[in-house]
Amino acid sequence: MSLLVVGSIALDSVETPFGRTESALGGSAVYFAAAGALLHPVQVVGVVGRDYPMEELRRVARRGLDLRGVTIADGESFRWAGKYGFDLQTRETLETRLGVFANFKPEIPEPFRDAGFVFLGNIDPELQLQVLEQVHQPKLVACDTMNYWIQGKRTALLKLLEQVDVLLVNDSEVRELSGDWHIHRAARWVLERGPKFVVVKKGEHGAVLVERDRIFYVPAFPLDDVFDPTGAGDAFAGGFMAHLARTGDLSDANLRVAMVYGSTMGSFAVERFSIGRFEEITLADVTARVRAHRDLVHFELEPGDADRR
Amino acid sequence: MSLLVVGSIALDSVETPFGRTESALGGSAVYFAAAGALLHPVQVVGVVGRDYPMEELRRVARRGLDLRGVTIADGESFRWAGKYGFDLQTRETLETRLGVFANFKPEIPEPFRDAGFVFLGNIDPELQLQVLEQVHQPKLVACDTMNYWIQGKRTALLKLLEQVDVLLVNDSEVRELSGDWHIHRAARWVLERGPKFVVVKKGEHGAVLVERDRIFYVPAFPLDDVFDPTGAGDAFAGGFMAHLARTGDLSDANLRVAMVYGSTMGSFAVERFSIGRFEEITLADVTARVRAHRDLVHFELEPGDADRR
Repeated sequence: MSLLVVGSIALDSVETPFGRTESALGGSAVYFAAAGALLHPVQVVGVVGRDYPMEELRRVARRGLDLRGVTIADGESFRWAGKYGFDLQTRETLETRLGVFANFKPEIPEPFRDAGFVFLGNIDPELQLQVLEQVHQPKLVACDTMNYWIQGKRTALLKLLEQVDVLLVNDSEVRELSGDWHIHRAARWVLERGPKFVVVKKGEHGAVLVERDRIFYVPAFPLDDVFDPTGAGDAFAGGFMAHLARTGDLSDANLRVAMVYGSTMGSFAVERFSIGRFEEITLADVTARVRAHRDLVHFELEPGDADRR
Repeated sequence: MSLLVVGSIALDSVETPFGRTESALGGSAVYFAAAGALLHPVQVVGVVGRDYPMEELRRVARRGLDLRGVTIADGESFRWAGKYGFDLQTRETLETRLGVFANFKPEIPEPFRDAGFVFLGNIDPELQLQVLEQVHQPKLVACDTMNYWIQGKRTALLKLLEQVDVLLVNDSEVRELSGDWHIHRAARWVLERGPKFVVVKKGEHGAVLVERDRIFYVPAFPLDDVFDPTGAGDAFAGGFMAHLARTGDLSDANLRVAMVYGSTMGSFAVERFSIGRFEEITLADVTARVRAHRDLVHFELEPGDADRR
């Protein structure tokens, strides 16, 4: 089933202890799509300015992105600049210039409106709601958000939650949204407001899928060198949603596998600046890392082992 | 095979957002033994003052502790007092009075010297070395340590590492010991100095077993209410070592199961003050939670799922 993402398309300038990049492809829709397209084609809706390096985006698109929903508007593209601390745990935003993104009004092209799977990247919840008005009965809708909207657009965000199936956020966001520092209680607070699933991303500590009566953990894939954490969460969402879209299977067992694909894509995202790693790898690399994830957590209780009384 | 622990036996006064306790049973050897004894008998070596409530300790001992290695010395017992912040993530030490523990010289009773499994709780590494001089060819030796010894007794600690099989520490300790903030690299630094395995405990983020070419993660068991985090690490060690001692199996597969028993015991430890929870539960409760751990992380790759190219 087709997979649609609506989100930012940006130019990122990032400095880490290992180097820096200037005006590289970035934004939630770009990370999501670059990761997801390794598994399943991704329809992209977003806006860029006339300065955007469309030839670079089109090069990436050959791997499975449908760019018919990308509008080129008069003005400058969304630009973000940030700098990470020595352990990559802290990040300072040096510059945010919204450019044409400030007036973004998502218009879903007619051929995209039948998307079975929809990911609403981190944009104004009022715009996320507008997207939902334009699509026809998707099988699964997931959304991201951030502290800025939790604080400033709470009413719209709560209205949105009533209409989405999955909320994918990081730990600080679910804490702020719910007012509860305890992640599982916080996630269950969200479950009472509409979503059937909450995915909480915890960076180096992995991610957790919270359902009403079940919890699933996936660790972050262990990497010796994290190069640039930017976009890991959106790449996670891309892997998660693309696995669901390509299988069309929303069983609990398959949601767990989708979490592993998400974690895998997050781990690739941080190995290079921008979406560089996704241009190097193939599906074989992805599936190898998915299998390696299993070895990270798998254990067998011997027959009788857990039965001894 | 028999299991020996050498460590502190203390009286803890703890304040959490949920209540407080005064002069309750505590110390690394007590948490280790209370947890471990649910799986396998534990021989305890330590020292207490004349003020220690030995009748309480003997009540616990009926569940499987051999107290013949506990010396009652003239003077006061080791006392620790601490206060946790609202989210239980931060802890302030209000008082540490070493009492008779200041002059502790571990003497291993003759019947304990053949122990197959030895856990050296967090005490001066010179004393940990003295223990190793007294035991005969144990099958597995594990040790804990803390920042105080890493800073003040580094030479003795590095000598100790050459003689132990497992280092069980928390994330900040392995970082400080190795000088590397990256946990896997830090653990591998330790592996080069003697131990075959490093267990890094990460509190609410679970624990990781690092071997030369393999990594295993176990999440912290999700609890709605953590009551008092004191002793969770020692209870983890107790579950880990007791499972190995009762099975006598040091295979990679069984080490993983031991990690799950460790995590399970850590989760029980935090549900009450002191070792209260271990007095309430039975092996059946332990095995039920071990099984539940499996559901937290288990996923199945469909046949062909990870093979699709």
